[in-house]
Amino acid sequence: MNGVPSLLSAHIQSLLPRDGTREALAQSVIPSILQGVSDIAKALHDAQDVTQAGTANSFGDDQLNVDVISERHVRTALARCPSVRVASSEEDPIERPVEHDASTGSVQAGAEQYTVAFDPLDGSSIIAPNWTVGTIVGIWDNGQTALSQSPASSQIAAILGVYGPRTTAVVAIRIPGTPASCLEVGLGPSGLEDCVIVRPSIRLPSLQSINPKTRYFAPANLRAAAEDERYMALVSHYITSKYTLRYSGGLVPDVVHALVKGHGVYLSPVTEASKAKLRRLYELCPLALVVECAGGRAVDPVDGTDILAREIGNCDERGGLVCGTADEVEFALKGLLG
Amino acid sequence: MNGVPSLLSAHIQSLLPRDGTREALAQSVIPSILQGVSDIAKALHDAQDVTQAGTANSFGDDQLNVDVISERHVRTALARCPSVRVASSEEDPIERPVEHDASTGSVQAGAEQYTVAFDPLDGSSIIAPNWTVGTIVGIWDNGQTALSQSPASSQIAAILGVYGPRTTAVVAIRIPGTPASCLEVGLGPSGLEDCVIVRPSIRLPSLQSINPKTRYFAPANLRAAAEDERYMALVSHYITSKYTLRYSGGLVPDVVHALVKGHGVYLSPVTEASKAKLRRLYELCPLALVVECAGGRAVDPVDGTDILAREIGNCDERGGLVCGTADEVEFALKGLLG
Repeated sequence: MNGVPSLLSAHIQSLLPRDGTREALAQSVIPSILQGVSDIAKALHDAQDVTQAGTANSFGDDQLNVDVISERHVRTALARCPSVRVASSEEDPIERPVEHDASTGSVQAGAEQYTVAFDPLDGSSIIAPNWTVGTIVGIWDNGQTALSQSPASSQIAAILGVYGPRTTAVVAIRIPGTPASCLEVGLGPSGLEDCVIVRPSIRLPSLQSINPKTRYFAPANLRAAAEDERYMALVSHYITSKYTLRYSGGLVPDVVHALVKGHGVYLSPVTEASKAKLRRLYELCPLALVVECAGGRAVDPVDGTDILAREIGNCDERGGLVCGTADEVEFALKGLLG
Repeated sequence: MNGVPSLLSAHIQSLLPRDGTREALAQSVIPSILQGVSDIAKALHDAQDVTQAGTANSFGDDQLNVDVISERHVRTALARCPSVRVASSEEDPIERPVEHDASTGSVQAGAEQYTVAFDPLDGSSIIAPNWTVGTIVGIWDNGQTALSQSPASSQIAAILGVYGPRTTAVVAIRIPGTPASCLEVGLGPSGLEDCVIVRPSIRLPSLQSINPKTRYFAPANLRAAAEDERYMALVSHYITSKYTLRYSGGLVPDVVHALVKGHGVYLSPVTEASKAKLRRLYELCPLALVVECAGGRAVDPVDGTDILAREIGNCDERGGLVCGTADEVEFALKGLLG
C-alpha cells in the first residue's frame, strides 16, 4: 500500500520477524485495515442521524445503515490486500474468497496468505445515544479458513477500531517465535496519512502495582446476577472493595478502557437463563489476542479455559468472557466457578 | 447569525413566544452555541492523541489540552452573540462580562440579555480511552448573573453537546408561559450548515408504558454503596429486577442515554465518605432543565427537593443527583431516603 507513514510501518516491521516473511502483514494488511477503520469513522462522523437506518429515502433507495457501510469499508480494505485470501464477518458469517482489486496483483504460492474474520460495527445498542462503538478484526495465518485451527498460534494479529470523539485503534501482533506486542494508534482527519503511535506498548500490569483507587470493573450481562448468586457476590465484592464501575455495553470500548487505564476486569458470564452470546470468531478470539498481547488473560467463564485454547468449529459458535488484568481474571474465575 | 439552516431556526422559533421577544435566543444564541459544539467536535476528532495535553511541544508553546480548546470554542461562540452579556465556566468559574466581536453590534436596553454558564468538556476521566464526552451549557434570562436567581424560572434554556462517533446535541427550552420542549439535533461535517433535527420531541414517558426489558440504570459514585446500605439495596433491586446497566461515567452520555432510549435513572448519591461533587451551576442545573423539559425529574438525593428549586449561592456550589424517568426518580428517592 502506498503512502503508509514510515513511522507506523517501521514500528510494525520492528515487531515482526526480520526475515521478510511478514512483509505483506506489515506493509499491506495492517495498514489497509487501519485505513478501513478511518473510513468507517469518517462515515459515522459525517452522519447526523443513524436512527433512520434501513428505511427508504426520498429517492426510493434504501438508506444504508451503519452496519452495512462499515462492512463495505472493511471489505474494501481487504480487497486491497492480495495476501488476504478468505474473509467472513458477523454481518455475512460465511468464509468466502476475497475478491481483490484488479490493481492489487497476485500472491505467489508459499508466500504470506491470511484469513480475516471481523465484526464491522460492534455495539449496535449504543449507536443511537451516540456512545463509542468499535470494529473487531482477527487475522489468521492461513489462506483457507480460520476454523478448526489453534487460535493461540494461528490467529497472529488483531485490530480493534474505536469510534469515539477521536478515532483510535489497538493493534496486537503475536507471531510464533516473536515477542507479542500491543499498541494504540490515533488516526487523524487524513486517516493513515496522519496516523500516530499513541501507546507503543500497552500493558496490563499485575495487581500489586496498581493503585487501589484506580481499579475498574465492567459487569456485562448483569441480569445474570439475578439468577447466579456467585456473580452477584462477585459484583458486591467489587463494590465493597471500591472498584470504579465503567460499563458502556460496547465490547470494544469496555475492553479498550482497561487497556488504556492499565487495569480492568470485564465479565460476561453465562447462566442457565442468559445464554452465551459473544461470537467466538468475530468477537472473542480477536479480543482475547489483544488482551493476552497486553499481558492480560481472556477465559471462558464456563470452565475457566483460555478463550484461545479451543478451536472454532463454525462461524456462529458463541461463548461468555472474562478478561482483563490476569490476577483479576483469576480472582473472578474463583468467584464464578466456586 | 448568518447561514442558520432555516429548518432548525424555524423549529426553534416555533417553540418560543410568537411576540418576537426571543428572537436573539432563536436566531443567535442557540445556533451560535451549536456551532461551538460542532467546532469542539472537530477539534477532538482531528486530534490523534490527547494524552500529551499540557506538555510543551517542540516550538516551546504549550500544547493546548482539550479542555482549554473546548473552553475557547464556547467563548468564541458567545462572543458572536451580543445578547449574551455575562458568562462563567467550570474552567474559569467567575462571572465576567463577555467581550464581543467588534462586528456583532450592541444590545438595546430592555432587549434580550442572557447569562451563560458552561462546562466546556465534561468527562475528563474517559477522554483517554476515547469514550463519548460532552459539553453542558445553561442559558439564564438575565444579563447580570445566574446566581441568587430561581433556576426553575430564570434558566430558560440548556444545551448538551455530545461527542461520540457522531456529533449530536440536546436542546431544552422552557420560557415561562410557553410549553417546555426538548429536542435532539445531529451536526454533520459542516456543523450548523448541515444540522438536522433527529428527535423533535424527546420524552421520558411514565413507567407503565415502558417495556420491562428496556429499563436502564446508571449508578454513579457506586463506591458510596459500600458505605450506604440503602444505595446498595437500590442497586440490588435494579439487578434483580433485570434492569440493563449502562454507566459510562460521563454525565452527558449517561443522561443522554436515558433521553434517547426513552427510559433511565441516573443516581449519584452523597454519603458521609463520598462528598457531593457535581457543580450546581455548570452541571446540575442545565441537566435538570433538560430532563424536566423531557418530562422527567432531577432531584437532590440528600433531601429529595428538585435541583431547580434552590437558588445557586456561588459558582462552585456542589451537590448529588438523581434524575431520569419521573416514576424511577420517585422510587429511588424512597429507597435512598427511607
